[in-house]
Amino acid sequence: MLKAEIYITLKKTVSDPQGLTVKHALESLGYKDLADVRMGKMVVIKLNYEDKNRAEKKINEMCKKLLANPIIEDYHFKIEKEGA
Amino acid sequence: MLKAEIYITLKKTVSDPQGLTVKHALESLGYKDLADVRMGKMVVIKLNYEDKNRAEKKINEMCKKLLANPIIEDYHFKIEKEGA
Repeated sequence: MLKAEIYITLKKTVSDPQGLTVKHALESLGYKDLADVRMGKMVVIKLNYEDKNRAEKKINEMCKKLLANPIIEDYHFKIEKEGA
Repeated sequence: MLKAEIYITLKKTVSDPQGLTVKHALESLGYKDLADVRMGKMVVIKLNYEDKNRAEKKINEMCKKLLANPIIEDYHFKIEKEGA
């Protein structure tokens, strides 16, 4: 079994109101030294096979078709043997 | 400047309807070899200082106070020099 961890972030040029809200909330709790806060998504997919090349191809497809919005989001992922 | 990447995931014992919905959506697109899909959050915080020990302490506090819900979520993070 393989485990893919996919990280989806807004592109740098896209404004992130959720991140801004979290930044303000943290500042109101007394954390004043924050330069920037950005929110992202994480998807963990476990795959019923062991072929890493196949997994890489499939995960890329899944990101493009469903998980990420390529207009405003970037993604990257890592794939490892489950249990490693 | 330091960059902290925080990953927040639901605890294993907590059911994840959003992950299940994504799993079904991927299956309906033809990806049948999925064992499990779980969704998580990612927060990227840039800090206006260089002291890694201080950053580690502060990020831990932020997670406990605001970012994660310790009843149902786990978190881990990594801190690195921005630009590295």
